[in-house]
Amino acid sequence: MKKVAVILSGCGVFDGAEIYEAVLTLLAIRQQGASYQCFAPDKEQLHVVNHRTGEVAEGESRNVLTEAARVCRGEIKPVTECKVEDFDALILPGGFGAAKNLCTFAVDGAESKPDADVLAVCKAFADARKPAGYACIAPALAASVYQDGVKLTIGTDEPTAGGINALGATHINCDVDDVVIDTDRKLVTTPAYMLAGDILEAQAGLEKMVKSVLAMK
Amino acid sequence: MKKVAVILSGCGVFDGAEIYEAVLTLLAIRQQGASYQCFAPDKEQLHVVNHRTGEVAEGESRNVLTEAARVCRGEIKPVTECKVEDFDALILPGGFGAAKNLCTFAVDGAESKPDADVLAVCKAFADARKPAGYACIAPALAASVYQDGVKLTIGTDEPTAGGINALGATHINCDVDDVVIDTDRKLVTTPAYMLAGDILEAQAGLEKMVKSVLAMK
Repeated sequence: MKKVAVILSGCGVFDGAEIYEAVLTLLAIRQQGASYQCFAPDKEQLHVVNHRTGEVAEGESRNVLTEAARVCRGEIKPVTECKVEDFDALILPGGFGAAKNLCTFAVDGAESKPDADVLAVCKAFADARKPAGYACIAPALAASVYQDGVKLTIGTDEPTAGGINALGATHINCDVDDVVIDTDRKLVTTPAYMLAGDILEAQAGLEKMVKSVLAMK
Repeated sequence: MKKVAVILSGCGVFDGAEIYEAVLTLLAIRQQGASYQCFAPDKEQLHVVNHRTGEVAEGESRNVLTEAARVCRGEIKPVTECKVEDFDALILPGGFGAAKNLCTFAVDGAESKPDADVLAVCKAFADARKPAGYACIAPALAASVYQDGVKLTIGTDEPTAGGINALGATHINCDVDDVVIDTDRKLVTTPAYMLAGDILEAQAGLEKMVKSVLAMK
């Protein structure tokens, strides 16, 4: 049975992991006969967003790992405990948390800085030539991990694609139910909720991403 | 297209809605060609549980509706705005929130009291003879809604089943991938994470529940 490390960025689309994407990714991993272990960085979120109003909740603070634990029934570990030798593949669902807590793309765009602990894990998978899947806005982090013109997608949004290209990637437009594969780097990306109008649209692309990652040798 | 009202009880298995169950329910509704609108009560949670440690976070408070909004990308309304005439069916996923925030079963067992606003909505669907699905521990609430020996399941846990029977229900043991149907009352229940050892097991029962609810006239 293949084992997949999944890095979550919190719990909720506006300040953490996009919950539909996270759960559909975990479901697809199990449906393909693989297992998963979730991880998250043990640090404060960039901020807390009230998901009812969309406003930042001033004065509130939450921990990325503690909130991400909600997604996966408490079965989660600090990202520093993710050892590349224990896993066959790495997958990162999206949500603004990927661009707020795993790197600073949401704030800094083309000057985005990855979280050091997350970068170390992502780079370890890249250096070991183990397959990885990044969904939604998480490819902004992949740009920093792989650089050197790595082929990836966040859908079709031009300003976002421009920022990612400035980080060293080669953005390729992609439909919501499809994936972009950089075969040399074993990197699979899909737009998910960068384009999805509906949970079914997100599911189609995420399932294709998971299948593509798990099909790689 | 059939329209389903879904009542959530927060965001996270230990103090709110079980996230896998909620998302898999919403996915199944759309896969069956129906649409959904999520609702939650606008009130404080019973408590906040740190999902990393399992401990109650003393001094913290969160709002059920505000947190439930995280599950469904902010697309949620107060349960008081749920009008039975606008929907074909009602579904409640589980998680401890169903027994902590939608009723007091987690604290009071056989003396459980339903939240008044939630009870009004659930009773309106029962009185209109519209189909309903309750998963995991949510059937503890269904016992108070339907009473009169309504047939339902929370799986196989005897003390929990005893408490539910004391509320006026007739508990029937059920496997994780199956449902119990009270055809007279158009009520479908499934154990989900009362028994599931895995997201695939939960998915099988929840999909069967959603299909059964949507197949009812």
